[in-house]
Amino acid sequence: MKLNIALLAGDGIGPEVIDQAVKVCDAIAEKYQHDITWKPALTGAAAIDEVGEPYPDETHEICANADAVLFGAIGHPRFDNDPSAKVRPEQGLLKMRQKLGLFANVRPTFTFPSLIDKSPLKRERIEGTDLIILRELTGGVYFGERGRKDNGNTAFDTMTYTRAEIQRLAKKGFEMAMGRSKRLCCVDKANVLESSRLWRETVQAMEKDYPEVEVSYEFVDAVAMRLVQWPKGYDVIITENLFGDILTDEASVISGSMGLMPSASVGSKVSLYEPIHGSYPQAAGKDIANPLATVLSAAMLFDDLNLNQEAEDIRRVVNKSLAEGIVTEDLAEDGKSYKTSEVGDWLAKNI
Amino acid sequence: MKLNIALLAGDGIGPEVIDQAVKVCDAIAEKYQHDITWKPALTGAAAIDEVGEPYPDETHEICANADAVLFGAIGHPRFDNDPSAKVRPEQGLLKMRQKLGLFANVRPTFTFPSLIDKSPLKRERIEGTDLIILRELTGGVYFGERGRKDNGNTAFDTMTYTRAEIQRLAKKGFEMAMGRSKRLCCVDKANVLESSRLWRETVQAMEKDYPEVEVSYEFVDAVAMRLVQWPKGYDVIITENLFGDILTDEASVISGSMGLMPSASVGSKVSLYEPIHGSYPQAAGKDIANPLATVLSAAMLFDDLNLNQEAEDIRRVVNKSLAEGIVTEDLAEDGKSYKTSEVGDWLAKNI
Ligand SMILES: CC(C)[C@H](C(=O)O)[C@@H](O)C(=O)O
Ligand SMILES: CC(C)[C@H](C(=O)O)[C@@H](O)C(=O)O
Repeated sequence: MKLNIALLAGDGIGPEVIDQAVKVCDAIAEKYQHDITWKPALTGAAAIDEVGEPYPDETHEICANADAVLFGAIGHPRFDNDPSAKVRPEQGLLKMRQKLGLFANVRPTFTFPSLIDKSPLKRERIEGTDLIILRELTGGVYFGERGRKDNGNTAFDTMTYTRAEIQRLAKKGFEMAMGRSKRLCCVDKANVLESSRLWRETVQAMEKDYPEVEVSYEFVDAVAMRLVQWPKGYDVIITENLFGDILTDEASVISGSMGLMPSASVGSKVSLYEPIHGSYPQAAGKDIANPLATVLSAAMLFDDLNLNQEAEDIRRVVNKSLAEGIVTEDLAEDGKSYKTSEVGDWLAKNI
Repeated sequence: MKLNIALLAGDGIGPEVIDQAVKVCDAIAEKYQHDITWKPALTGAAAIDEVGEPYPDETHEICANADAVLFGAIGHPRFDNDPSAKVRPEQGLLKMRQKLGLFANVRPTFTFPSLIDKSPLKRERIEGTDLIILRELTGGVYFGERGRKDNGNTAFDTMTYTRAEIQRLAKKGFEMAMGRSKRLCCVDKANVLESSRLWRETVQAMEKDYPEVEVSYEFVDAVAMRLVQWPKGYDVIITENLFGDILTDEASVISGSMGLMPSASVGSKVSLYEPIHGSYPQAAGKDIANPLATVLSAAMLFDDLNLNQEAEDIRRVVNKSLAEGIVTEDLAEDGKSYKTSEVGDWLAKNI
């Protein structure tokens, strides 16, 4: 198979983790005789520095014409601590999501048998966790009108949703639940927010089309609690953009390391695959970041192209590296740890 | 001392847990020769049923003229699953917070030596946790303009803050940090939200007035993760209303039971004390709800009136009940559990 994959390394540890995913994908391509053409493109702070724009048109062209996008991370502390910065790396990520129509972010949460004791949560609470959070990605307070009033002394952001936006996300959620344990939980704050009430009303109206799916409605504050108390209580969770941002990061704790959790952003023609961790600037350039979340994101990419054998191979080799302790320092038990690049080399060799 | 305390039992398990707090306070009053007059008033679904309003004017009069308000819980599933309901119990809570000027919600998070193994989190991660989340309570998306457009097919909520609102909350945070480990963490989403940028900018400008306080700025998604990963990393957290709602519920997991965490809402003349758990309708009327969060909220009430000996007495007797296993079923190890009312009686007797 011929594959064009846009490669957006981004900021911080992005380039390092992306490099390892490329090695692994190239090894897969060789084994299965695929022909991958990598199309690197600028994004994030790196793009601001070079062309003054975090998601340049040229990058969009490359992504829009690719079969998939593999993405590293975005963000730089230089912008975070300057509330008045006009251009920010994150704007690039948001623009990319919007322009590529990536309205659903799929974030699976699961545990790794060999890592279960790394979790801050007790074994019996998390063993066997297998949930998916489906986060709406192109609406809500991320994209509503925002600004200042009263000489800059009042600031506002608008959380807004249309019924159609909710329907298309919920549809994916119902379908996903149908292929799993048929349990769907809609997370909102309908006791306060009008947008949440529209979510609840819209999902309630869709229930009749999926009579086999058992739907529950929970408030985001309660879920923030239950997610760590009893993650096995959930199967598929659907939620709006900001709640999804918070809950997916929280859920990553279950597996024991942020460095492990992959994600896919889907919606229209081309999909994007990225680790859920951020740019982790403190580690940038040190060859110590954990590349597994990015490598597992590449596995999701192959799965979505129906190359399931390839995806399985990647997951197998990742599990093998964990079992054999070929891991970066965040996971090193009390022994040896490996560099980011060494882990990548090992994975590629073992494909 | 003569004390007028407004008593708002509210919905669900509210009346039952409030009853136990009253018993304990009455025992304290007897021991220390205080004269407490309880002023019961209607609120929540109960008030809607009786007078069509979740926070009637009469209730407000009683609260505004009291020395403190002791509050149970609010909310009823009948309203949650009806997105079109016009009057909702929660509106009463929001109106009460606003009309009483309760702009800061103080939620301490700590562990109980005898309960540490109840937590879903591992002992070494949580032992010694002692943090306070200071949640802004009368601003943000809870109070901004909201509504529908396009024949009800678009819904919006507005998250809005003024510099003054942020300053008064942050001031409390800085002062609180000064009396503790001098570490303050401002939690926002400044990489996306304009209101968060105003938060960050405002708090940054106040740093110079508290040179001894070490201030950090973290994104809400990262904090949702770190809070369960390493709660001991935090001392005082300040944050806006919605983020505070989510993070405080999440933090309650640390102690092992939602039924244990008290809170105080402060701001102007009269303060309000309430458990952080909700109305827990499934347990209502069964005499099984854990009353300790409400009893510990009463301890915060005495502390704020500078009756510290009284507060200490309440905490001592609560710890004693935990150590001796005089607990409701949520905490019963593998033996006997007690009814809500029995726990209350035991506590009062042991004051
Ligand atoms: C970097 C930031 C804008 C982004 C978000 O909030 O969506 C990130 O946290 C994520 O979850 O992908
Ligand atoms: C009942 C609800 C409106 C309320 C809130 O969101 O503030 C509750 O969750 C709380 O935290 O006190």
